[in-house]
Amino acid sequence: MKLPLKKLAEHVGGYVIGDGDCLIERVATLKNASAGEISFLTNLKYKGELQATRASAVIISEKHATECLTNALVVTNPHPAYAKIATLLYTEKTSLQGIHPTAVVEPGCEIDASVWIGPHCVVETGVSISAGTVIGPGCYLGKHVSIGKDCELTANISVMHHSRLGDRILLHPGVVIGADGFGQANDNGKWIKVPQVGAVQIGNDVEIGANTTVDRGTIEDTIVEDGVKLDNLIQIAHNVRIGKNTVMAACTAVAGSSTIGENCAIGGCVAISGHLSIADNVTITGRSTVLQSVRTSGVYSSSTPLEPNNLWHKNHIRFKQLDEMAKRIKVLEKELENLRG
Amino acid sequence: MKLPLKKLAEHVGGYVIGDGDCLIERVATLKNASAGEISFLTNLKYKGELQATRASAVIISEKHATECLTNALVVTNPHPAYAKIATLLYTEKTSLQGIHPTAVVEPGCEIDASVWIGPHCVVETGVSISAGTVIGPGCYLGKHVSIGKDCELTANISVMHHSRLGDRILLHPGVVIGADGFGQANDNGKWIKVPQVGAVQIGNDVEIGANTTVDRGTIEDTIVEDGVKLDNLIQIAHNVRIGKNTVMAACTAVAGSSTIGENCAIGGCVAISGHLSIADNVTITGRSTVLQSVRTSGVYSSSTPLEPNNLWHKNHIRFKQLDEMAKRIKVLEKELENLRG
Amino acid sequence: MKLPLKKLAEHVGGYVIGDGDCLIERVATLKNASAGEISFLTNLKYKGELQATRASAVIISEKHATECLTNALVVTNPHPAYAKIATLLYTEKTSLQGIHPTAVVEPGCEIDASVWIGPHCVVETGVSISAGTVIGPGCYLGKHVSIGKDCELTANISVMHHSRLGDRILLHPGVVIGADGFGQANDNGKWIKVPQVGAVQIGNDVEIGANTTVDRGTIEDTIVEDGVKLDNLIQIAHNVRIGKNTVMAACTAVAGSSTIGENCAIGGCVAISGHLSIADNVTITGRSTVLQSVRTSGVYSSSTPLEPNNLWHKNHIRFKQLDEMAKRIKVLEKELENLRG
Repeated sequence: MKLPLKKLAEHVGGYVIGDGDCLIERVATLKNASAGEISFLTNLKYKGELQATRASAVIISEKHATECLTNALVVTNPHPAYAKIATLLYTEKTSLQGIHPTAVVEPGCEIDASVWIGPHCVVETGVSISAGTVIGPGCYLGKHVSIGKDCELTANISVMHHSRLGDRILLHPGVVIGADGFGQANDNGKWIKVPQVGAVQIGNDVEIGANTTVDRGTIEDTIVEDGVKLDNLIQIAHNVRIGKNTVMAACTAVAGSSTIGENCAIGGCVAISGHLSIADNVTITGRSTVLQSVRTSGVYSSSTPLEPNNLWHKNHIRFKQLDEMAKRIKVLEKELENLRG
Repeated sequence: MKLPLKKLAEHVGGYVIGDGDCLIERVATLKNASAGEISFLTNLKYKGELQATRASAVIISEKHATECLTNALVVTNPHPAYAKIATLLYTEKTSLQGIHPTAVVEPGCEIDASVWIGPHCVVETGVSISAGTVIGPGCYLGKHVSIGKDCELTANISVMHHSRLGDRILLHPGVVIGADGFGQANDNGKWIKVPQVGAVQIGNDVEIGANTTVDRGTIEDTIVEDGVKLDNLIQIAHNVRIGKNTVMAACTAVAGSSTIGENCAIGGCVAISGHLSIADNVTITGRSTVLQSVRTSGVYSSSTPLEPNNLWHKNHIRFKQLDEMAKRIKVLEKELENLRG
Repeated sequence: MKLPLKKLAEHVGGYVIGDGDCLIERVATLKNASAGEISFLTNLKYKGELQATRASAVIISEKHATECLTNALVVTNPHPAYAKIATLLYTEKTSLQGIHPTAVVEPGCEIDASVWIGPHCVVETGVSISAGTVIGPGCYLGKHVSIGKDCELTANISVMHHSRLGDRILLHPGVVIGADGFGQANDNGKWIKVPQVGAVQIGNDVEIGANTTVDRGTIEDTIVEDGVKLDNLIQIAHNVRIGKNTVMAACTAVAGSSTIGENCAIGGCVAISGHLSIADNVTITGRSTVLQSVRTSGVYSSSTPLEPNNLWHKNHIRFKQLDEMAKRIKVLEKELENLRG
């Protein structure tokens, strides 16, 4: 789709400096853009590329607009403006509707006529799917799953029985929603399964990355609130609750019954223990380990630094002596005090 | 299913204080239970909710039974008793038998007549499946896979050629059993594949969580013994052996040829190096890093604490000075000794 | 397949000490080998098993050949020689060609006549697949995906639109190539999706382990170069570039826009932050955390040691005092200097 720059400006509530009629077809980086492409400046690390860019236009803040030698689309916040423009240029809404002949849909489902169910899907009895939703190939929807409107399940996704998904949800391949939580009771040395009779509730506008798993609750539900964005290969255990608009990067794990607040930003490879509570507006940097609740908003971290292996060996072994070292310092301080005294 | 409380007591070898005829239909938490529901008290953190519960009955130990204002089902160990009762109330054994018309089953398989093979499954030649096993939709069983009786493969699972699974195994969606181990031989700077000609053996009563991977052995087999329970997104590398009744929480990884003993409890996000040996009855807490064998049973840990980011920065950088700090303490101690002397 | 030992020697450019006509059918470990089997000695830890082995032959370096009591196949480098021999003995090239009747292949694809597309695959329009490639059951290939020759996609793999794969690529079950990268722009407190309009390029001779995910680029492509080998459950984020012949063990994560050099060896459970650069020939040991670029080749590590839980508790808490401890040491040094002065 080709659109005039002024049309894009209108779409994002910005204004044009330069030629509002120039036609934009694609997005590109400042460095590699060519005619017909629009780029953007958000990370000032790339400001050096602004002068040489061959983009037809650049989405830019007022502050830097004068440094733009090509057409400028000036906005308050270039990143979401870029996102909206790219969405406009690239979204080709599928016109697919109906049920592919190879899909298996059991009786007793309520599926809106505008829904698409792709090849080799399996939809168990009691499933409901609202208008505009697209179920890609190879997906499995268990009994009594409900899915809201305008969702996209891309491919090879498993949504287990009684999971309830809101509207405008995007699930990437390999996602598993509502598998049993990890519940085992020890019966004289042998583990017996604790049935997981809760379900999963997912709010509106949630995106979940490839191969991420969200387990069903033990008795009550696991809950992912509106606007949550989860990256790939994340584990959300049973009875976790993730608050509105919280984002979480790849390979992070949240153990059972923990609650994450709203508007949190959890980095990648973070491990969060079970039965904890994380306040709203908490940022946890990548690879952190969270063994206690976080009661106050702020930025938190753990992890140790990368070192050349031979140096690391020396420091690594000293970790075991930390407590002893602290005590020896205390002794030294006392002795010195005595000497001085 | 509705059952009288005395029937449930009989099922778990407990006794009733109160009305043994009251009918129980579902489980619930103490806090949210209502009439017809049974709850339980195992975590004393929730004891405060005992008095106000509207549950029809509570599974409880003798010690706390007198504090229960509703009907009490008294048992020695409430957690497994709860598990057994929930299993009784919720299990609806599928009556499905046979092979769905969309499943592809190659000739040369031995499949018991009571087995169910769901839609869009693919079963290669030489596969054997014993009585009562359910293969859910979209599963792939490679050549010469054997699966015991009363197993459940939920959906979208891949079991690669020659894997051998025991009885009463439960696999959650996205599980991959018997993919090639990671074997690469360096041939003058280029990596060439080491064929993985071993297989995977999984014992009886094993449960494996969503998207967990268990690799096949390089020459001999990777082995998961009876009663092992693995959570989601776990990696079990080639030639690992996991001993009986060991449990492992999500996102843990065990590198090649390591042996984990029996009755171990491995937390989530634990990394276990290759060619190690972990003794029986070892507990390793979440996020630990295991670079050496653990020869003695006990509880082990590693990891560093979460801190506000600005404080972490200061301590993080000091990690690189640990060895130097230890040496400086030693020097100080000597100098002080000299001074005193 | 049974082959005479001298044939195998020829295949790997080695020579036989002993009976070159003895027939070899399988590989085995030194310990468990029997007649008709060939073993190898690479890890000297197993040298003690050399004398008692019942293998018909052992692949061995010149240095240790005299210690071999059975037939020896002498080579410069036993590990790749073993890999080549095992490949020769075990490879049964599938003779399958064509498209399984249950596969759904949309019009507008270019698929070589020698390609096999297995049951329940879904191939969207515009896909091209070159000679000799095998697409196993349940795979999904999105629009305009291109796949080179002699690749194997084992089963239940998702390759999203416009991904471009080279020749001789091996993908294990559950792999997801080209799912959207994790791009979210904050628009007054609400996250809006940044369309991921780049793709994924994968070079030749790449192997990718089970349930690993490689995200598509935001604007330009995510790139995995020739000869890269990725283990299971790895996350490669958008716009990452992984250099030639780099290997990466399981559960490692590389955040967005980071560049890994050639011939690197990245251990398992490593976390690499975004926008970093790792030089060529860098080894990073398992569980390391990489928060800064690594400019020089070498071996690097981080992580803290495993300890009995009670000792760990004491040292763990001291981590928060590290900076203070360092300062106190400095004060002590000054005071001592004053005392001495």
